[in-house]
Amino acid sequence: MKVTAKQLAELLGGRVEGDPDVYVERPARIEEGTAGSLTFLANPKYEEHIYKTEASVVLVGEDFKPKLPIAATLIKVGNVYEAMAQLVSHFDQKPEVSPGIAATAKIGDRVSIGEDVSIGDYVVVGDDVSISSGCQLHPFVYIGNGSGLGSDCLIHGGVQIHHGCQLGDRVRIHANAVIGSDGFGYVKGQDGKFKKIQQIGDVIIGNDVEIGANVVVDRASLGSTIIRDGVKLDNLIQIAHNVDVGENTAIAAQTGIAGSTQIGPDCLIGGQVGIVGHVKVGAGTEIQAQSGIASDIEPGSRLYGSPALPYNHFLRSYASFKNFPQLISQIRDLEHRIVQLEKKLEQVRPKG
Amino acid sequence: MKVTAKQLAELLGGRVEGDPDVYVERPARIEEGTAGSLTFLANPKYEEHIYKTEASVVLVGEDFKPKLPIAATLIKVGNVYEAMAQLVSHFDQKPEVSPGIAATAKIGDRVSIGEDVSIGDYVVVGDDVSISSGCQLHPFVYIGNGSGLGSDCLIHGGVQIHHGCQLGDRVRIHANAVIGSDGFGYVKGQDGKFKKIQQIGDVIIGNDVEIGANVVVDRASLGSTIIRDGVKLDNLIQIAHNVDVGENTAIAAQTGIAGSTQIGPDCLIGGQVGIVGHVKVGAGTEIQAQSGIASDIEPGSRLYGSPALPYNHFLRSYASFKNFPQLISQIRDLEHRIVQLEKKLEQVRPKG
Amino acid sequence: MKVTAKQLAELLGGRVEGDPDVYVERPARIEEGTAGSLTFLANPKYEEHIYKTEASVVLVGEDFKPKLPIAATLIKVGNVYEAMAQLVSHFDQKPEVSPGIAATAKIGDRVSIGEDVSIGDYVVVGDDVSISSGCQLHPFVYIGNGSGLGSDCLIHGGVQIHHGCQLGDRVRIHANAVIGSDGFGYVKGQDGKFKKIQQIGDVIIGNDVEIGANVVVDRASLGSTIIRDGVKLDNLIQIAHNVDVGENTAIAAQTGIAGSTQIGPDCLIGGQVGIVGHVKVGAGTEIQAQSGIASDIEPGSRLYGSPALPYNHFLRSYASFKNFPQLISQIRDLEHRIVQLEKKLEQVRPKG
Repeated sequence: MKVTAKQLAELLGGRVEGDPDVYVERPARIEEGTAGSLTFLANPKYEEHIYKTEASVVLVGEDFKPKLPIAATLIKVGNVYEAMAQLVSHFDQKPEVSPGIAATAKIGDRVSIGEDVSIGDYVVVGDDVSISSGCQLHPFVYIGNGSGLGSDCLIHGGVQIHHGCQLGDRVRIHANAVIGSDGFGYVKGQDGKFKKIQQIGDVIIGNDVEIGANVVVDRASLGSTIIRDGVKLDNLIQIAHNVDVGENTAIAAQTGIAGSTQIGPDCLIGGQVGIVGHVKVGAGTEIQAQSGIASDIEPGSRLYGSPALPYNHFLRSYASFKNFPQLISQIRDLEHRIVQLEKKLEQVRPKG
Repeated sequence: MKVTAKQLAELLGGRVEGDPDVYVERPARIEEGTAGSLTFLANPKYEEHIYKTEASVVLVGEDFKPKLPIAATLIKVGNVYEAMAQLVSHFDQKPEVSPGIAATAKIGDRVSIGEDVSIGDYVVVGDDVSISSGCQLHPFVYIGNGSGLGSDCLIHGGVQIHHGCQLGDRVRIHANAVIGSDGFGYVKGQDGKFKKIQQIGDVIIGNDVEIGANVVVDRASLGSTIIRDGVKLDNLIQIAHNVDVGENTAIAAQTGIAGSTQIGPDCLIGGQVGIVGHVKVGAGTEIQAQSGIASDIEPGSRLYGSPALPYNHFLRSYASFKNFPQLISQIRDLEHRIVQLEKKLEQVRPKG
Repeated sequence: MKVTAKQLAELLGGRVEGDPDVYVERPARIEEGTAGSLTFLANPKYEEHIYKTEASVVLVGEDFKPKLPIAATLIKVGNVYEAMAQLVSHFDQKPEVSPGIAATAKIGDRVSIGEDVSIGDYVVVGDDVSISSGCQLHPFVYIGNGSGLGSDCLIHGGVQIHHGCQLGDRVRIHANAVIGSDGFGYVKGQDGKFKKIQQIGDVIIGNDVEIGANVVVDRASLGSTIIRDGVKLDNLIQIAHNVDVGENTAIAAQTGIAGSTQIGPDCLIGGQVGIVGHVKVGAGTEIQAQSGIASDIEPGSRLYGSPALPYNHFLRSYASFKNFPQLISQIRDLEHRIVQLEKKLEQVRPKG
């Protein structure tokens, strides 16, 4: 794709400042832009680079006011990230899997496969599986008996989807993720040994869900583990049996959610967060990275700490924690002054 | 399986309250039970559902006292989870791998394979491997040279077991776990570069061990990393080189144990816990999720926090942390009163 | 290999104390040493074992002073770990993959393969890939279109390297790691739904890098995610898009680094650490396990806690946290004394 700044501005509904006829043909980071590249400035941390970049065009916010002269042509837009996301997809690369079903793919009995499906080398599909149109399965994907994929799913290499799991449309699962492994359920017998509780539920994944590399979503012990429409899971996340994650919730890497917990829609959960089992996290909750959630959470909460407190409360407590050594010397000083007062009072004459 | 409440009660040694002749044919969660389903109530959090469920039979504890009328037939048992675990295994599904050795499996030289072994498509087995009777290997499993599996092991898809590792009987390993990868060992040279210490030990796994999806158990640098009989590891756990995990210890997801640490038997370790290297955790220790262990631990301890404190000690300290801002204003108030006292004392006449 | 203590001492530039003619033929841990084995004592925690070991030879530091008689022959060396690392590599085992390209490997178009390359069963290599001399690819490895491997790389089973990623020489990647998966980037639309930002950058890995099992290194959104020469990553680590890890930095298991963060060279980062996006961690920084980094860090810092404080500062604050309940009773005592003072002062006669 080779386009002018003017064409881009029209596409984005933005406004050009500078040469409208300059061409760009590839996207780049602002630190690395060269002639012919298109870049963007959204996070003010990177502002210094706009005065030095050799990129031909930079997308900026409508309210961006340069502090120094800028060589590049600017396009001012309402939402820089959204505009960049829209453009970058035009420069995106070709699919990694050839169309059609590889000769080495093993397909079970009674499998229905839609139109325009690509199945790569060494894929194994069990019996009674349904794969809708437009799906791409990369090498070493395993789909267990009775599972189903909606249309236009993209399943990367090494993903294992166990039996009886259902995916919606446009689900993306990244490499080596595991869907439908057994939940962690045991009963401790009187002999002190654990007896396994068979995990006979399944996993249901909605539409437009994206699941990161090496994520694990366990099947329910009974019933279903549910990942609802529009959920985005980063890499290395643990979703235990019978968890239910609400629509359009996004969870950062390495977070773990224990069994039977319900996460509301529209939550933003940071990385390395831990959430105990059997609690409800209300809609629109924001949880800071590394926090620990041990009880039900009201909708719209903002939390931090392990165990978590309201965000500002945690910051105040932590500020005090940080000043602790100083506080201790302050208390020692108070004690000293009290001792002085006590001594002095010994020396005064009582009323009377 | 289709059975009456009476038959179930006899099997479990339980007592029927309600219609003993009602049939059930599938298990279900109490929230989702419909006519013909069997469910259970163990966690009191879910009690409300027993008054609304359409399930035909509910297992409850011997001491359960309903607060409202219940439509379902009850079966009262001593341990609800244990009873449910026993029943659910009767409803469990069929194996995912066909009997026999798939034509696409690559089997090395001098491999011994017992009776009733199933080896799925695209499994790779090295030389001098021993696979005992009743084992199931799912697609894309790799077993390195010289490794051995006891009887009735179930190895899910994508599991990589490196050379020279030994598994006991009835070991289950979930998808994409890695057994016997190199430990993380280097020497920093005078040039500031790390020089790898070859990891030439192995991994020994006992009987009745279950290992979750995407877990990593590193081989020992020298000697063995050991996972003893009855240990249960949840998903995404890291077990470093030369760790030794004692019998019947259970560890929740995303916990990491650093090199050469010994975990005693019968411990319960929460999720996202970190344990440093070269320490001993005594038998029967309980560690709360997200805790950090940095020293030897006495048997029977109960710990919380990072770095961990005794459980109740941590709770008390954290309660104070939570009340910190209030404490600060309390101290400020004390200081103010001292200033007042100091001023007043200026005005009193000394004894004389 | 069967050698005498004298030969070993010459090889290492060490000094023999005891029988120089005793033979050793295998390495062992000091707890497990038997006649014919070579072991070492570096960590003083294990000193008790040197007085009981049946190993024939023990490597010790130059300044080691036994407190009891020792049966084994000692070899005194400057750096015990370095000496042991040097020797152990002589005892190391044979490669797991046979030389040559397995008949079942699928190799794309325009792939260049150097001399002495081993490619195992069921490896899939895309188009336009370059694999330099001496590389070993284990079963189920996937190399995407346009990626390149330097010489002598060792890629373990199940590793997925996506399109357009470049590895230097002597890179080792352990089983089921993922290189070049999509970064976690979305824009939230006005409809509350996330819109994916296509991730069209790549991953560049330097020379002598080692990457642990089940690690994920995401591709850049634009530009490159960079792992520089000599970096060592333990298992289950998350490296987000556009991260840059400096030369000879070592990172322990389960740590996560968020997008666009730059880690300086020669850092030592503990396990389960979290580092937010868009910050710079200076050269030579040491970060304690389970810490959380939320801002730029000066070179040479030593940090601990979540959010992290300077190491000793955290320890002091945590000591106070631990003594919190005691502090509270101390403050209560001060308050009581103030009340007493206030009462007494009521009873004294003012000056004048």
